[in-house]
Amino acid sequence: MFFELVHKDKKSKARAGLIKTDHGEIETPIFMPVGTQGTVKTLSPRNLIEVNASVILGNTYHLYLRPGHELINRMGGLHRFISWDRAILTDSGGFQVFSLKELRKIDEEGILFQSHLDGSYHKFTPELVLEIQRNLGSDIMMVLDECAPYPSTKEYAQKANKLTLKWAKEAREIFDNFKPLYDHRQQLFAIVQGGIYKDIREESAKALVAMDFPGYAIGGLAVGEPKETMFEITDFCTDILPENKPRYLMGVGMPEDIILAVERGVDMFDCVIPTRNARNGTVFTANGKMILKSGRFKDDPKPIDSDCTCYVCRNFSRAYLRHLYNANEILGLKLATLHNVHFYLWLTREARKAIIENRFFDWKQKILQNITKVIEN
Amino acid sequence: MFFELVHKDKKSKARAGLIKTDHGEIETPIFMPVGTQGTVKTLSPRNLIEVNASVILGNTYHLYLRPGHELINRMGGLHRFISWDRAILTDSGGFQVFSLKELRKIDEEGILFQSHLDGSYHKFTPELVLEIQRNLGSDIMMVLDECAPYPSTKEYAQKANKLTLKWAKEAREIFDNFKPLYDHRQQLFAIVQGGIYKDIREESAKALVAMDFPGYAIGGLAVGEPKETMFEITDFCTDILPENKPRYLMGVGMPEDIILAVERGVDMFDCVIPTRNARNGTVFTANGKMILKSGRFKDDPKPIDSDCTCYVCRNFSRAYLRHLYNANEILGLKLATLHNVHFYLWLTREARKAIIENRFFDWKQKILQNITKVIEN
Repeated sequence: MFFELVHKDKKSKARAGLIKTDHGEIETPIFMPVGTQGTVKTLSPRNLIEVNASVILGNTYHLYLRPGHELINRMGGLHRFISWDRAILTDSGGFQVFSLKELRKIDEEGILFQSHLDGSYHKFTPELVLEIQRNLGSDIMMVLDECAPYPSTKEYAQKANKLTLKWAKEAREIFDNFKPLYDHRQQLFAIVQGGIYKDIREESAKALVAMDFPGYAIGGLAVGEPKETMFEITDFCTDILPENKPRYLMGVGMPEDIILAVERGVDMFDCVIPTRNARNGTVFTANGKMILKSGRFKDDPKPIDSDCTCYVCRNFSRAYLRHLYNANEILGLKLATLHNVHFYLWLTREARKAIIENRFFDWKQKILQNITKVIEN
Repeated sequence: MFFELVHKDKKSKARAGLIKTDHGEIETPIFMPVGTQGTVKTLSPRNLIEVNASVILGNTYHLYLRPGHELINRMGGLHRFISWDRAILTDSGGFQVFSLKELRKIDEEGILFQSHLDGSYHKFTPELVLEIQRNLGSDIMMVLDECAPYPSTKEYAQKANKLTLKWAKEAREIFDNFKPLYDHRQQLFAIVQGGIYKDIREESAKALVAMDFPGYAIGGLAVGEPKETMFEITDFCTDILPENKPRYLMGVGMPEDIILAVERGVDMFDCVIPTRNARNGTVFTANGKMILKSGRFKDDPKPIDSDCTCYVCRNFSRAYLRHLYNANEILGLKLATLHNVHFYLWLTREARKAIIENRFFDWKQKILQNITKVIEN
C-alpha cells in the first residue's frame, strides 16, 4: 500500500500518515524542500539528510530545459544525477509555464511556451510531461494541469478545469500501462483545480477521485487570493478527497499557513519560502522570524534560536551570520538556508507528533502565538 | 617548543616539521586555506575539518574594516566568532594595503590608506596591526611590512626593506611584553622583503634572524616577477633562514609552485587560487586541472578525479557539476571549492609523507609530470 493513514486528530481534520516509496518512507505531514534545478539551493544532499528531509521536489520545466531529461536519463536518472537516494516528487511543469504568462499558448492538446532561457518553442502535453518525469525517475509524478490565475472569471476557471480533467484522463490512461525506466516504482498525483469557485472545485475533485489516482494535489491556490479564501477552498477540497490517499497543497507556504492547512487535512507541502527568504536574510523560528541583516544583531552572541538543534544554531552567533550577509559571503546564504529547512522539517515533524499524541489543537494554539512575530532581540 | 624539525630530505632542502599551537598541531609542509573575511569562501568550519585543514588564514585588513576587531573581541575572539577551534594565522594587512595602490601613503610611522568599502581614512602602524591581531587572537600574527611592487628599482626595494626592518624591530619590542587577550598563546612572524635583489634579501633576512622571531615569512614574491626568479629568491632566503624556525612563502600558489617551493625548504603556504579558481569553475587534481564548465563534460558520469577521496568525488559526476555551473547554482561553487581545498591539503600531506619516507625526489618527479596538464576527458 502506497499510503497508510496512521492517526486522525479528534478535534480537527489533521492526520498523520505514511507514504511508502522505493526511496524510503515519508512521514506526513511533511514539508518538501524545493530543488528546482536539481539542487535545493545552496544545500548538498548530506545537508538535506542531516535535517531529516525524506522527500524533495524537482521542477520538470526547469530540468527539461536544462540539463534536459534525456541527459538525466543517460546519467542514470535524477536520483543518481543529484546523488539523492531518498524520495523525489516532480511537478508537471504546468505551474511554471503558467508563470511565464506572455510566453505561452494553451489549446486542447497542451501548452505551447517559449523557454525563459533562449526563447525556443516547446509544447507540454500530458504525454510529454509524463515521459519527462519517467526519464527523471521521480517517485511521485504530477499530471499536467492548467492553473487559472487569481482573479479569474468563473467561465475561465470552468474552462481551465475542463482542460485539466481532460488531461488528467489522458495521463491516467498512460499511467495504466506505465513502465518505469529505472528499478523503482513511480506514482502519479492528479491536481484539483477550480480557482475560488466551490462548485468547480467539487466537480474537479469528484471527477479526479473517480479516476482513482494514488494521490491528490490541491493546485491553483496561493496565487494571490486572500488567505482565508485559500483555507476555505482547501478545507472544502479535503472534505471531498478520499481519506486513504495523500493530499498535497502546492506552493504553501509560511510556517503558520502550513499549520493551518494541516488542521484542514493536508499531508504534503512545498514552498520556496524557507530557501528564498534565507538567501534574502530572513530566518524562521518557533518564536517568529528574524531579519538577520538588521543592525540590532551586530554584536548579538546568541544563536538564531537557542532551542534549535540545527548545525547553525549549535555553532554560530547572530553577529557572525549578520557579518556574513554584510560581507556578501556565500556561507551566510547556506547557513541561513540550512537553518530554515531544518525549521520547516522540525515544524511538520512536531505537527505529526502532536497529532499522534492527540494534542494537535493545544500545540497549534501555542505555536501560533509566536510564530508570526518579528524577533527583535 | 613552537616548531620541531621532524625530518630533512637527503636530496633537497625539503623538510617535514611540526608547529605546535594552543589550537592544535600543524604538520608541515602545510597549505593554509584563505578565510579573508572570517570564512574560507563557501565552506563551513566542518568542511575544513573534513579536508584536514589544521590552520586557516584570516586577513587583518578585511576583518579590521568589517566587522571590526573590537566587535570580534566582544564576540570572544576570531576563533569563537567563526566557530573554528584549530589554528589561525592572520596577515599584517600590509599586502592588502599594498594592493590598494592609489589609496595609500607610506611614511616612517606606518601606512595611511582609504577603506575600499567607504573611503574612510585609516593608518596601519606596527603597533596597531599587532593590537588588531591581539583582538583577533590569531595563533600566528604577522608584523607590518612594506611589500615593494614588481618591478621596483633597487633604490625603492632598499627603502621598503629599511622601513620593513624598522617596523619589525618595533613589533619585536612590543611582542617582548605581549599579553594575549584570550586563554592561548600567540606567536609573531617577521617578513623578509627585498624584491628580486639578493643583497637586499640577505640584509633583510639576516637582520630579522638577529631579532629572533618565532617564524619567518618570505614576502614580496608572486607579485608579477618570473617564476624562476621567485624560486631563485626563495631558495636564496631559505639558505639564510634558521633551520629551527618555520618558513612561510606568502601567496604561493599553483600546485606545482608549492611542490617546487617545498623542495627549496618552505614549510607554509597560503593562496586564494584553490578557492577563487573553484568559483570560476576550475578544479585541480594530481592529473592536471579541469575546466568544469567545458561542454566536453556535459554527459560525463565520472567524478572530477576517481582517485580522490573527497566528498565531491565520492558523490558527484562532472556532468552534474557542470550543470550546477551552467544553472548558476551556489552548490557548484561550494563543491568545487571543497574539492580544491581537499586537493591542496592532500598535496602538502603527500609531500610530507614523501619527505619522511625519503622519497621526495621521486614523488616530485612523478607528480610534476601530470599536475600542470589540462584534463580533457
